[in-house]
Amino acid sequence: MNLNLRSFLNIAPDSDFSMHNLPYGVFCPPQQSARVGVAIGEYVLDLSVLETAGLLPIHTQPPVFKQDSLNAFIELGAGAWQDLRDRLQEILSHDCPDLRDNATLRKHALRLQSDVTMLLPVKIGGYTDFYSSKEHAYNVGCMFRDPANALLPNWSELPVGYNGRASSVVVSGTDIVRPNGQIKLPNTERPIFSACRKLDFELETGFIVGKATALGDAIALQDAPSHIFGMVLLNDWSARDIQQWEYVPLGPFNAKTFATSISPWVVTMAALEPFKQATPIQEPKPLDYLSTCEQYTFDIDLQVALSIDNDETILANTNFKYLYWSMAQQLTHHTSGGCNVEIGDLMGSGTISGAEKYERGSMLELTWNNTEPFLLNNGLNRGFLEDGDTVIMRGVAQKDGIRVGFGDVRGCVLPAKTL
Amino acid sequence: MNLNLRSFLNIAPDSDFSMHNLPYGVFCPPQQSARVGVAIGEYVLDLSVLETAGLLPIHTQPPVFKQDSLNAFIELGAGAWQDLRDRLQEILSHDCPDLRDNATLRKHALRLQSDVTMLLPVKIGGYTDFYSSKEHAYNVGCMFRDPANALLPNWSELPVGYNGRASSVVVSGTDIVRPNGQIKLPNTERPIFSACRKLDFELETGFIVGKATALGDAIALQDAPSHIFGMVLLNDWSARDIQQWEYVPLGPFNAKTFATSISPWVVTMAALEPFKQATPIQEPKPLDYLSTCEQYTFDIDLQVALSIDNDETILANTNFKYLYWSMAQQLTHHTSGGCNVEIGDLMGSGTISGAEKYERGSMLELTWNNTEPFLLNNGLNRGFLEDGDTVIMRGVAQKDGIRVGFGDVRGCVLPAKTL
Repeated sequence: MNLNLRSFLNIAPDSDFSMHNLPYGVFCPPQQSARVGVAIGEYVLDLSVLETAGLLPIHTQPPVFKQDSLNAFIELGAGAWQDLRDRLQEILSHDCPDLRDNATLRKHALRLQSDVTMLLPVKIGGYTDFYSSKEHAYNVGCMFRDPANALLPNWSELPVGYNGRASSVVVSGTDIVRPNGQIKLPNTERPIFSACRKLDFELETGFIVGKATALGDAIALQDAPSHIFGMVLLNDWSARDIQQWEYVPLGPFNAKTFATSISPWVVTMAALEPFKQATPIQEPKPLDYLSTCEQYTFDIDLQVALSIDNDETILANTNFKYLYWSMAQQLTHHTSGGCNVEIGDLMGSGTISGAEKYERGSMLELTWNNTEPFLLNNGLNRGFLEDGDTVIMRGVAQKDGIRVGFGDVRGCVLPAKTL
Repeated sequence: MNLNLRSFLNIAPDSDFSMHNLPYGVFCPPQQSARVGVAIGEYVLDLSVLETAGLLPIHTQPPVFKQDSLNAFIELGAGAWQDLRDRLQEILSHDCPDLRDNATLRKHALRLQSDVTMLLPVKIGGYTDFYSSKEHAYNVGCMFRDPANALLPNWSELPVGYNGRASSVVVSGTDIVRPNGQIKLPNTERPIFSACRKLDFELETGFIVGKATALGDAIALQDAPSHIFGMVLLNDWSARDIQQWEYVPLGPFNAKTFATSISPWVVTMAALEPFKQATPIQEPKPLDYLSTCEQYTFDIDLQVALSIDNDETILANTNFKYLYWSMAQQLTHHTSGGCNVEIGDLMGSGTISGAEKYERGSMLELTWNNTEPFLLNNGLNRGFLEDGDTVIMRGVAQKDGIRVGFGDVRGCVLPAKTL
C-alpha cells in the first residue's frame, strides 16, 4: 500500500474521502441522468465521463458506469474492482497528467458533491438484517425479558437474522414519515391504530454482496470475504410500539418495513483492508462451519447524532469492531441452508452497541425504553424521536495517517399521515 | 359473463385451463427465448407471436410479451388486462377466424404445454408470507405452546406476516435440495449442524401485486383488490427442526429461505370473479382500517399429494375460503405503515388448513409433529418428507359449469449436500 498517495486535488486532511478511500455511489448532475461516481475530497468523480473518454481499464458494452446502480460494475468481479481502484489512484495522483492537465475533461468529470443528487447506490434484490451485537441483544433482552435470560440460547450459536423489506430501503436524505400502525397500550384490552409513539433509529452498518451464488450452494467461511463488495452506514428505523405488539411469533414486520436508510457511498473492502483486525473471542467456540481463526472485523468508529433546527447533540459513539458475529459468519450462515444471494443484496449488521452507556446504538437502549430520557444540547429531553428530528450517523476508520470515512446517513422525521 | 364460451380448440371438460381461465405464464419453446403465454386446454398460446402479428389490443414499444416476466404487461394496468382477456376469449372462440383459419399463425402461436419449459412467471422484488389460517395457527400453537394459549393475542387483530426471501422463489418442477442447518436435539446441550430431519411443505396460495404504491402510501381496504393481479399456488417448504431452533425472537429464516415453489400459471382475479364469496365472520370485528363488508374470498379447492415412484397418495384436501384474513386485508395491513409494494411482489397466504384432520396443509399438522405418522398408499409411513418424495399441490375453482384451475406446483426432494 502506498501511504504517500497525494492527489492534484486539494483534499482536506479530515475529509472522509481520501485517496485511500474512493467509495462508489450513484448520482445525478443537475438536469442529467444517473451515473456512477467516486467521492474524492469534496468532489465526485464521474466515472461515466472517464469511461467514455477511454481512460479506465474497463471496456464493456453496454458501459457499466452510465447506469443507475453499481450492480453492473460489481458484476465484473474482484479483478475489475482492483484494476479500477489502482487506476483511479493513479489518475487522481499529483503526478498523473491524464485528468490533471485536461481542463475540459476535469470540467465534465469533477463536480462538487454539494451540486449533485445522490441516489441509492445499488439495486437491492434482497435485504437481510442481522442481530449480531451482543451488547444490543443483551440490552433488549433485559428490557423485554429479564437480565438472567437476556440472551436466548440460539444467540451465541448462530448469527440471528431475518429477512427485511428491500423496497423501502432509501438513500440518505430521504425524509422518513412516522408510520401508523397497531399499538397495544397497557391499559386497554384491544390495540389501537395510531401514529407510532416510540419511533427509534438503529445504528448499523450493512454490506453489499459482490458475488452471487446459485440456489443450493453454501459459501464456506474462508470464501465469504470474497463475496463482499463493500459497506455502507445503515439506519434501521424502528417503530418500537408496533414491533412489540406484532413481532411474536414471526418477527418484526411493519415496525421496520416503513423505511431503512443507507449512506450513498459504498466503501470498498479494499479501502477498509488496513483497518482489519481480529474478531472478538467467541465463547462457546462456534460450530465448525462458523469457526475461523482469520481476522475479519474492522476498526470503524461510528457515531449517531440528533439534530433539531441544526443544533446537534451527539447521542452515542460506538465501533463496528464490537460486533460479535463477523460479516463473513453472517454470509456463511445465510447460505448454509442453500439460500442463494445476489449481487447488490444488502446485509445489515444489527444495531451496534458497545459495553458503555454512551456506546448504545438506539434510543431504546440510550433511554432504557424512555425511563431515562436523554438530555439534548438545547435543554430538551428525548425518550424516542419526535417530528422534525434529524438523525445523523457517521462512520470513519483512521490509522497511521490514513482516513477512510463513510460520510453520513441522515433522515428527518416527518409527521404521520392523518388517519 | 358469457357461459357459452366455446373454443375452436378441443378443450377437455376437466381441463384446468378453460376459456374462462386464461392464466398467464412465461415459457421457452425448444431452443428459443422466453416469452409470455396463456394456458388454454393442453396448449400454451404464445402472446409474443400474436403481438408481433398485430392481433392484440396492446401496442407498446418495446413489446411486453417477448419478455422473461409478466411485469411489463402487468404494469399496463387493469384496463389493459381486461382488454386483453376480452380479446383472447374472442380470438380463441369457435366463431372467430383470426387464429382458427390461419394455419401458419396457429403453428407458431400454439404449442403443447408438454413441449415447452415453464419459467418463473414474474420478477419478484419482494416476497411476504402471511399466517392467515386460524386452523393452522391454532394447530401450530397447540403443538409448540398449549391449546389454551394456542392463538397469540395479536393473531385475531392483524394478519400476522413476515418478509420472506425472494431470491429463492422457484417455479414448479425445480428440485428441492434438503437444507443443512443448525438443529437442537433434545438430548444435547449444544446444537449440531446437520441435514434437516423434519422437512415439510406448506400448502399455500400467493397473490401477485398488480399496482405499485409509493413509499409512505397506505392502500385503503376498499382499494386493495384493484392492486391484485392474480394468484398462484405456493409451496412454502419448511425445515421444522431448523425453524424451531432459530425462530425466536426474529422469526423464521434459514428454515424457509432455501426454497419456495410457485405454480407457473398466474390465474387472474378476473377469472376468479365467479368464485368470490363472503369472508368468514371475524370476531372481534377488526379495527376500522381492516373492516369491510365486501366479499373478498374465493371458493378454491386445494389439494396436496405425495408421489413416490409415481405412486400418489392424497395427503389433504382443503379450501382457500377457510382463510381468516383476506388478501385485501393482508395488503392493506402490509402498507398501513407506509411500506411500498411493487408490481410482481408475491404475498403468500400462509398454510391453509381447515377444521377437519384431512384438511391440514402441512406434514407437521397431518402427523402432529411425527407423533401420528401418515400411512401412504404404498404401505409406508411418513412423518416428514424423505429424499425422493415429490410434493404436488393442485387448486381448482368450479361452479355452474365453469372450471378455473391452477394446474399444479410440484417439487422433488433431493438429498442434502454432503457437509
